[in-house]
Amino acid sequence: MASSMRTLTVDLGDRSYPIFIGPDLVANSALYQPHIHGRQVMIVSNETVAPLYLDRVESALTDYRLARVILPDGEQYKSLEILDRIYTGLLQNRFDRRCTLIALGGGVIGDMTGYAAASYQRGVNFIQVPTTLLSQVDSSVGGKTGVNHPLGKNMIGAFHQPQCVIADTSTLDTLPDRELSAGLAEVIKYGLINDPEFFDWLEQNMTALVARDPAALAFAIERSCADKAAVVAADERESGQRALLNLGHTFGHAIETGMGYGSWLHGEAVAAGMCMAAAMSGRLGWLSGQQVERIDRLVEAAGLPVHPPREIPAERFLELMAVDKKVMDGQLRLVLMRDIGQSVISDDFDPQALKQTLYAV
Amino acid sequence: MASSMRTLTVDLGDRSYPIFIGPDLVANSALYQPHIHGRQVMIVSNETVAPLYLDRVESALTDYRLARVILPDGEQYKSLEILDRIYTGLLQNRFDRRCTLIALGGGVIGDMTGYAAASYQRGVNFIQVPTTLLSQVDSSVGGKTGVNHPLGKNMIGAFHQPQCVIADTSTLDTLPDRELSAGLAEVIKYGLINDPEFFDWLEQNMTALVARDPAALAFAIERSCADKAAVVAADERESGQRALLNLGHTFGHAIETGMGYGSWLHGEAVAAGMCMAAAMSGRLGWLSGQQVERIDRLVEAAGLPVHPPREIPAERFLELMAVDKKVMDGQLRLVLMRDIGQSVISDDFDPQALKQTLYAV
Repeated sequence: MASSMRTLTVDLGDRSYPIFIGPDLVANSALYQPHIHGRQVMIVSNETVAPLYLDRVESALTDYRLARVILPDGEQYKSLEILDRIYTGLLQNRFDRRCTLIALGGGVIGDMTGYAAASYQRGVNFIQVPTTLLSQVDSSVGGKTGVNHPLGKNMIGAFHQPQCVIADTSTLDTLPDRELSAGLAEVIKYGLINDPEFFDWLEQNMTALVARDPAALAFAIERSCADKAAVVAADERESGQRALLNLGHTFGHAIETGMGYGSWLHGEAVAAGMCMAAAMSGRLGWLSGQQVERIDRLVEAAGLPVHPPREIPAERFLELMAVDKKVMDGQLRLVLMRDIGQSVISDDFDPQALKQTLYAV
Repeated sequence: MASSMRTLTVDLGDRSYPIFIGPDLVANSALYQPHIHGRQVMIVSNETVAPLYLDRVESALTDYRLARVILPDGEQYKSLEILDRIYTGLLQNRFDRRCTLIALGGGVIGDMTGYAAASYQRGVNFIQVPTTLLSQVDSSVGGKTGVNHPLGKNMIGAFHQPQCVIADTSTLDTLPDRELSAGLAEVIKYGLINDPEFFDWLEQNMTALVARDPAALAFAIERSCADKAAVVAADERESGQRALLNLGHTFGHAIETGMGYGSWLHGEAVAAGMCMAAAMSGRLGWLSGQQVERIDRLVEAAGLPVHPPREIPAERFLELMAVDKKVMDGQLRLVLMRDIGQSVISDDFDPQALKQTLYAV
């Protein structure tokens, strides 16, 4: 086992599981074996990732009866219809409820495979092998699985925890720059939510992260997962504080919807959204001008946008935000910042501060 | 509230819920209200049941924002494709995760609505209003929800407990005789599994049950639910003893598959299956000839078949049983009887007893 591997345990009682982080892990059979209980293993991947890593994963699993399902690559395939290909593959191979699914790919593959595992024969085991920075820091923790519906994103799903997560930093070598940056948006988010020390570290190490330094990436992934796990452990079913993880997301979803999905990457929209939340927090007097500036500079250094697209007028932006699912009982709730590393959920803010933030763009 | 109502609590820790049993309950708003948390209520029913009872249920829920989805009636519609109509209805009505689904119908409606509730926005509340005897005694307890896949029955699903179950015995007045008998097969099953006293009571009261005596039905439903709850509470995720609930089902599934689904009702196949399990237990010396005879007579009195159809030759029957999902590691497991009211899961029986039972038909 690589000596540089980091292991983080997500503590969820009898559903606790380890996250393994480091280089050259996908072919390490010792990581998989303790987490596979039967003999039947189904690997689910997509047409982009499978040619790069499927052989290596399969080489680690020669002791098992292997099957595979390769899906088309893209958010538009995260549907019930494409999900059915996983069920069909499992049934054609006569896999029973002791089988294990392995998700090899980014967030879409992780969400779909996790949901197939949650629902096949009312629940089987699965292992996450995330191959993008976004999925390594975001999908590894929280147990959210699901698919989109034509009438809404992530509307069908389940909470289902993996047996383990294998986050191989070497797989990031093949990730396009833009997607690496999109993943860094979520990394910055964890510093802003509840970890000021990590934010400082990111300011010092953003150059190394953008240059894909393996040790810096492994540290950032571990710290992000630990920060997210702390929020999730306190609120597994998303009733309260877990909403902090939506920092930048209400603004970000408005950008994604306003521009049409796929035009901005999710991480890019979240980055601009976090800068908007920071600017608004500044207007409310909750952050200093210098703090807002530090946030913008870090986001910029990650290769990410600090402003929303000019194509969305302020009125339209407000409209798009009001249909966001974080609205409860007609009152808009936003995640704002009281300090760097101290985010809060608030529906008690001066609405003028929101309007001014949108019109200032 | 009707004074003749019986209430049984299914004890599952923080997921405990009541089952209300008695006449004239579907329009009793006091039963629903404590179990509906938001304002949004979606009633799911089918084309047979909706004309009979939907108005009455809706009349009890005038305080809520109501929506409805009416599905075609039949097991062949228990599919992902038809399930999508429930999701679409929920999304078109902009229902959020605080909504409540109400399943008004038999087992298919209960399974599908429960699964829609398990998976919509990763889980919302639901209430069961079962309108067949089979669903009142069988689907009310256990939390199993799901749909069929073209390659296998109940292959996609989740464990999801209802907020409450409203088992209105008056709805049985409109049930065809054959379906009433099919429900009685499961009632007899609970006596045979672990409740000899109930078996005795059934021998005394089968005439009243077949005549749809409301008090007798209410008692039989409550006792069946309590017996099932005792098995399920000890084994919520179906790892061991819960398999006792499959008494008669391995033989029964072979009949259903061999005859083509829909030819025999599930309860009819289970009835003949229980008699076969009894006959085999007799051959093993586990039941006396008199006990086997008592079981056959009770099944007959319920208007149910005691023999499998002659159309399935013994060799084919064995073949069909071997692909049943109760097979583990190649060894056929059967639920057999050591006594009336003492069923056991066994893979340690003389295979000749099975063959003789099949060839004796």
